[in-house]
Amino acid sequence: MNYNELSKSEMETQLAKLNVAYTTYVNMNLKLDMSRGKPGEDQLALSSDMLTILDESDYMSPSGIDCRNYGGLEGIPEMKALFAAILDISPDEIIVGGNSSLAMMFDNVAVNMSHGVWDGEPWMRQGHVKFLCPSPGYDRHFAICEYFHIEMIPVPMTQDGPEMDIVEDLVAADPMIKGMWCVPIFSNPEGIIYSDETVYRLAALKPAAKDFRLYWDNAYCIHHFRGSRPVIPNILRECEKAGTPHMPLIFTSFSKISMAGAGVAAMASSVSTCKYIRKRFFVQTIGPDKLSQLRHVHFFKNYEGVMTHMDKIAEIIRTKFATVLNTLKNELEGLGIAAWNEPDGGYFISFDTLDGCAKRTVALCKEAGVTMTGAGATFPYGQDPRDRNIRIAPTYPSVPELDTAIKVFCLAVKIAALEKKLTL
Amino acid sequence: MNYNELSKSEMETQLAKLNVAYTTYVNMNLKLDMSRGKPGEDQLALSSDMLTILDESDYMSPSGIDCRNYGGLEGIPEMKALFAAILDISPDEIIVGGNSSLAMMFDNVAVNMSHGVWDGEPWMRQGHVKFLCPSPGYDRHFAICEYFHIEMIPVPMTQDGPEMDIVEDLVAADPMIKGMWCVPIFSNPEGIIYSDETVYRLAALKPAAKDFRLYWDNAYCIHHFRGSRPVIPNILRECEKAGTPHMPLIFTSFSKISMAGAGVAAMASSVSTCKYIRKRFFVQTIGPDKLSQLRHVHFFKNYEGVMTHMDKIAEIIRTKFATVLNTLKNELEGLGIAAWNEPDGGYFISFDTLDGCAKRTVALCKEAGVTMTGAGATFPYGQDPRDRNIRIAPTYPSVPELDTAIKVFCLAVKIAALEKKLTL
Repeated sequence: MNYNELSKSEMETQLAKLNVAYTTYVNMNLKLDMSRGKPGEDQLALSSDMLTILDESDYMSPSGIDCRNYGGLEGIPEMKALFAAILDISPDEIIVGGNSSLAMMFDNVAVNMSHGVWDGEPWMRQGHVKFLCPSPGYDRHFAICEYFHIEMIPVPMTQDGPEMDIVEDLVAADPMIKGMWCVPIFSNPEGIIYSDETVYRLAALKPAAKDFRLYWDNAYCIHHFRGSRPVIPNILRECEKAGTPHMPLIFTSFSKISMAGAGVAAMASSVSTCKYIRKRFFVQTIGPDKLSQLRHVHFFKNYEGVMTHMDKIAEIIRTKFATVLNTLKNELEGLGIAAWNEPDGGYFISFDTLDGCAKRTVALCKEAGVTMTGAGATFPYGQDPRDRNIRIAPTYPSVPELDTAIKVFCLAVKIAALEKKLTL
Repeated sequence: MNYNELSKSEMETQLAKLNVAYTTYVNMNLKLDMSRGKPGEDQLALSSDMLTILDESDYMSPSGIDCRNYGGLEGIPEMKALFAAILDISPDEIIVGGNSSLAMMFDNVAVNMSHGVWDGEPWMRQGHVKFLCPSPGYDRHFAICEYFHIEMIPVPMTQDGPEMDIVEDLVAADPMIKGMWCVPIFSNPEGIIYSDETVYRLAALKPAAKDFRLYWDNAYCIHHFRGSRPVIPNILRECEKAGTPHMPLIFTSFSKISMAGAGVAAMASSVSTCKYIRKRFFVQTIGPDKLSQLRHVHFFKNYEGVMTHMDKIAEIIRTKFATVLNTLKNELEGLGIAAWNEPDGGYFISFDTLDGCAKRTVALCKEAGVTMTGAGATFPYGQDPRDRNIRIAPTYPSVPELDTAIKVFCLAVKIAALEKKLTL
């Protein structure tokens, strides 16, 4: 059955049937959540040993730092080495932070706004600051821009990453475009991996703003759950070659590797940028929690240790994504009312309803006790121009919960689509 | 012997003798550090059990929060309750942070600069921002001001706290005075406790700036090592009575209670201010490390647990301060070249040399391998108008190390004094 081929009365009959099924779910008083990219209990349990890995005589880093005391503003050397191995760069290019890469991104935007880039003219004194926002994208990136009154300019996404013709034209023309959000591997929410050419063209950008920065959120760099680790050109090296060595600010974290709320975050950039930031850290903080870093170093040991752990996580996440994708296929394929991606990694499925149906779909889910990310959240200012994109986050619920939640979702998609068609 | 009564030749003889003793120390290649308020190993060892207090089945807060996962932006309820008990306020008035109260202070200044107080006009758009800085004071407070180009206005300290006549006149006259640093209990470095009247007068300030804030760094509120816990009027309650309920921003932390680099920090303010800040936190961070909070809650249990622990710390610190104070007395009393305080708590001894001798004293110490806080550090811009104040931090070295370090220091004080007198 393709909904586009149904007569009005066939649609009405179909909608009535769906509403009966939907009411059954509503009466079940469900409380299910597919809204955030949150690890499930099964995934967190994989790093349980981190909770007991230190003891009363084990608090020195192998490099001889007392991890209990003050000091170590940029992280212990072993933690820097681990991040350097994951990002394939030098430890000199790493600054270890606290438990939140989001906090590091916020902090960098804040400082660029108030102090400029490298003590240049503060962005907020230069006029009306703008950022390029490939969309759909990550709502927390957009929230940072909103907080700082940074105008967000949406850029369409392609299967190769942001539409580069548009990006190049925009940054070359407007000196108030100061930054761009990028999730280069398994983009949030579409799971897209930037093509080599996209990375080369980003590195070779000729921004009108001399203080333009790429905010390179590499949250999912090793979060493939099918196939092997995706490899894209190294943005730091490509920017060096292109003569823009200080342009990228790279962010990543262990939040979705170890414990989500008690991981370790890091940023990376040119050696000079890291030196510059360390000077600020001396004023800003006593330094990040080194005991947490030591737990990570002991537990993961090295790059191979991290990748072995990620294989176990991949197995859990693969099953959850399969549950969602199978149901989407069984329930929605061929109806002509939906499209979605089938990513090989990351935390999300990007789902498109018929135009004008996303809000209604999410509202129907909510009424039946299934929380989805708000419709529109994947676009700047929460405004999806076609009201069709919904981000599905399958990682937190258990498989049986997920099975129910996604069935409710499919029902909601169908009901919203038929309601819409009946008004046309 | 009083140096003021010596003839020139007596001074020369004395100086020659001191230099012989000093050279002996120089030749010992010492490496001792009395520069920072850093806990010693003995003190850190008191909370060793925190390293093993959780296990693979113990990660839920008593209130039912999975401390491994995302969420809990303002801290787990049990940690809020612990801070509330220590500060004698309501848990609604607490926001739990990461491991650094310094970072929370920096963050609040940053946000007040870029966004104003409660979405008011940003401080940095209003003109040239100024802060009152009771001096001598804490170098890291001054460093935050310098970073944000906030003009620092020194205010003299008395034995009752900042000179309030001056404070009242200044804040009433100048709408660009937006803040004031206060360390109300065991002030850094003088160990002064604000008198009741000082607190009342601070609460009753009538600043020309409607968005004036008291940055109330209560780092040492339970850090008495002699006598009982000092009690001063509660600044939040006093400000309520005085009609300035949102004026104080209170900061404190476990850094000098549990593990210095892996403690838990908090801020406190009016309930409305806390609500306002939480909205920002949603944009700014995934929330602080809740496992660290759970470790603290398990280890300390309640207010009584904290105070029992502080008794043990007090014993260690009391011994270290006694080592320093005894030597200062034996070596310097009656010479007419030095003055110092004998605090009942906190982390520092504030030491005054003869005018114009602090820099030389610190340099002599350094040459003999004893690191002191830089002379001038206790004043805004590092400029001690009389070049006489030195902050002594006795907590980090062991007692034998301290014994040597303070002897070197006393020698340096004497040498610098005689050198100075001989040039007059």
